[in-house]
Amino acid sequence: MGSTTASVRTGAPGSPRERCLTMATVNPHVKAVEYAVRGPIVTRAGDLERALRQGQNQSFTEVIKANIGDAHAMGQQPITFLRQVVALCCFPELLESPSFPDDAKQRAQRILQDCGGQSLGSYSASQGVECIRRDIADYITHRDQGVPSDWNNIYLTTGASDGIMSILKLIVSGQGSSRTGVMIPIPQYPLYSAAISELEAVHINYYLDEDHCWALDIEELQRAYLTAKQQCQPRVLCIINPGNPTGRTLGFVTLGLTGGFLVYQDNVYALDCRFHSFKKVLYEMGPEYFNNVELASFHSTSKGYTGECGFRGGYMEVLNMDPQVEAQLVKLLSVRLCPPVPGQAAMDVIVNPPKVHEPSYAQFTKEKNSVLDVLAHKAMLTERILNSVPGIKCNPVQGAMYAFPQIFIPPRAIQEAQSRSLAPDMLYCLKLLEETGICVVPGSGFGQREGTFHFRLDMNTLELYSNIMLT
Amino acid sequence: MGSTTASVRTGAPGSPRERCLTMATVNPHVKAVEYAVRGPIVTRAGDLERALRQGQNQSFTEVIKANIGDAHAMGQQPITFLRQVVALCCFPELLESPSFPDDAKQRAQRILQDCGGQSLGSYSASQGVECIRRDIADYITHRDQGVPSDWNNIYLTTGASDGIMSILKLIVSGQGSSRTGVMIPIPQYPLYSAAISELEAVHINYYLDEDHCWALDIEELQRAYLTAKQQCQPRVLCIINPGNPTGRTLGFVTLGLTGGFLVYQDNVYALDCRFHSFKKVLYEMGPEYFNNVELASFHSTSKGYTGECGFRGGYMEVLNMDPQVEAQLVKLLSVRLCPPVPGQAAMDVIVNPPKVHEPSYAQFTKEKNSVLDVLAHKAMLTERILNSVPGIKCNPVQGAMYAFPQIFIPPRAIQEAQSRSLAPDMLYCLKLLEETGICVVPGSGFGQREGTFHFRLDMNTLELYSNIMLT
Repeated sequence: MGSTTASVRTGAPGSPRERCLTMATVNPHVKAVEYAVRGPIVTRAGDLERALRQGQNQSFTEVIKANIGDAHAMGQQPITFLRQVVALCCFPELLESPSFPDDAKQRAQRILQDCGGQSLGSYSASQGVECIRRDIADYITHRDQGVPSDWNNIYLTTGASDGIMSILKLIVSGQGSSRTGVMIPIPQYPLYSAAISELEAVHINYYLDEDHCWALDIEELQRAYLTAKQQCQPRVLCIINPGNPTGRTLGFVTLGLTGGFLVYQDNVYALDCRFHSFKKVLYEMGPEYFNNVELASFHSTSKGYTGECGFRGGYMEVLNMDPQVEAQLVKLLSVRLCPPVPGQAAMDVIVNPPKVHEPSYAQFTKEKNSVLDVLAHKAMLTERILNSVPGIKCNPVQGAMYAFPQIFIPPRAIQEAQSRSLAPDMLYCLKLLEETGICVVPGSGFGQREGTFHFRLDMNTLELYSNIMLT
Repeated sequence: MGSTTASVRTGAPGSPRERCLTMATVNPHVKAVEYAVRGPIVTRAGDLERALRQGQNQSFTEVIKANIGDAHAMGQQPITFLRQVVALCCFPELLESPSFPDDAKQRAQRILQDCGGQSLGSYSASQGVECIRRDIADYITHRDQGVPSDWNNIYLTTGASDGIMSILKLIVSGQGSSRTGVMIPIPQYPLYSAAISELEAVHINYYLDEDHCWALDIEELQRAYLTAKQQCQPRVLCIINPGNPTGRTLGFVTLGLTGGFLVYQDNVYALDCRFHSFKKVLYEMGPEYFNNVELASFHSTSKGYTGECGFRGGYMEVLNMDPQVEAQLVKLLSVRLCPPVPGQAAMDVIVNPPKVHEPSYAQFTKEKNSVLDVLAHKAMLTERILNSVPGIKCNPVQGAMYAFPQIFIPPRAIQEAQSRSLAPDMLYCLKLLEETGICVVPGSGFGQREGTFHFRLDMNTLELYSNIMLT
């Protein structure tokens, strides 16, 4: 293989000095994507953090990143049992160690037995490790009080985002007025709007009812659907329950729908709320619905009580999908080969926690309840603190890990924002950041009724911001 | 939140009995995706495996999955040091354990210090954990004998596939004859063609020279470029080195190019070969090239000697990208939040292995060399065995983990395939599977010159198939 030196000009955009990829040539659908959770305000927060580290004086000593629900970064401790199982899977020599409990070892051995070569380093099937898919189906059956779940309908994913993106990618088609429309709640989690932009689908906004604690309003759904029908083909109804950013937990709502989304099912803690899965709702509506409505539901290791965002574990359950379309889904997933196997293992622990007679049960339950209690306490306190600040009004937070308070911005500040070509809530959040070090995301990144302004705040940072808010 | 039951017909496609998502309405670009590595032949292999398990008689006792480079599934042992570091990161209580070596503990502590809340469960920055990005830049600088690498240009990814997909997504734009064209080698790894289909870009095939051990031929590149220019805007040149599926390691080739891809850099083992990075080539071509040509290079935990596919770790280095475009890339990556952090930790070990004075050095080096020696031996043996079978001709395998032998299919078999609407090499591979249990991927899934037929085979399975091939 000596050296074959040959100089070639492909004749492509002239001299190599001209860039091929510029803002003029970059994919316009990528340009159209907006993603507020990690947007300009977060960049500014990073700048301020660096400045603080370099000794610059600020009116605060720490930047508090309440922009993202990153539980562990905010000090939440991992669930011991989960980490034990994943560590055992990573380094099976630990199966000999007396310092690991037997139930953790059994879980790890069971997962490894279903991995190629009994190694977490093998590709899994694109749908995920079989025993984990079975555990998830059992978990869902139990969650829905016996409504059956088939493991063949379960797909492991790289966090929930990846599953949501794959399903949307499958559905989007058509041109002009037959282009696929996706109904999303306003406010929404910006992954949905980003995915819709990237896929060139049509946004259909339906507004949640802030005056009734962000309730889902059936008439508003119908209005949005009928309006959208004139300019696109509405084919997906996306529901986030418990709500992100609203923290609302939906009651029992019955819908005739053509698709759906669902996340955050483990984080419901308001006393008078319980989680109703859409699947169970369909079941109770009868076989005409349960056997026909196409439903995809999502869950992840990030947003339950475990808060294991970095593992990028997640799953989806897909109901009533045309088998030929399902084959297309499998093909699409297989191009990315498989979801990360350590994240799959973490997901397995969440759906298959220690049982009452097992050695890790007591500690696991204590740790889980402690996380949920802290979240419930923070939810209450967040609402109270925010409502004590003049110009802020916050609905009760019933689930998930966010609050989405409304802020009243005086006309002079609105004018200032306009003169600086900023959304008024962006200016508010920038000022909050510059003056207090608290980084929250402007409501405009999630969507809000015109003329209203909000921000989203991760409740995990409560200890950090509460002093500042109260003073 | 009592129960608000309300029955709603959105009026969407009529009764719920009609499916919304069918082969008629599914995204046509998803339908157009082909991905042979996990295609119909693999489905058939799965069926045969199940049949064997259920006691059905076959002419073989085991299905040998040589369709995918899945080292651990085929018995390759993980590198101890890598797994120790990841296990320590997962379960930091092990940092107190005397059974882990100090250098593994130091690596783990260093990684955790750069994670939010010192937890692998926090989101990392979308670009990846900072100290890992720095380690990768140092590794590249060392690999290229001092050609500098800036950690700001390094992005951690979810395996290499994810990075390749993100870069392609950024580049594809335009309509009709100004649509982005992507030059890919034939044969190629089908991720590229799948991504091109999914993104509606234009495939531009350039043929590798099988008669010269799959060499990259400059005149063929020019031919492909000039032909394509008439119908699209060629903007990406994709190079796979060492080659997949060909196993070819490129010599020192000098190109004026507008983009590039590169994987598999650690698996070069043919005695007269070394790995030349495109970046170093650009450097040696002088600042006019080094400071201007836009280059993206990829690597992963899957395809080096570690074979850690399931961890989905990987990175890319991006050179000379317009800063505004780079901001678009960061935004695109941030929608998926971050790559799996355990995979990032695994990647760190690969670029920052034990040093000569550290306690794990001896064992690490022994394990690494053993994997590479075995691969080199298998490469030689694979070539010899395949060439001993009548009707098969195989080039020497110099790198990566695959062989891509040519098969000569008699006219009668070609007729039979045509009458069954199968590609002739698909029929060949199906028969090989049905008769011997060996699952390989037909060359048509990778592309091949018209009238020639091949299959791709994972060399890791050598022990398993060699007996069958020789008898």
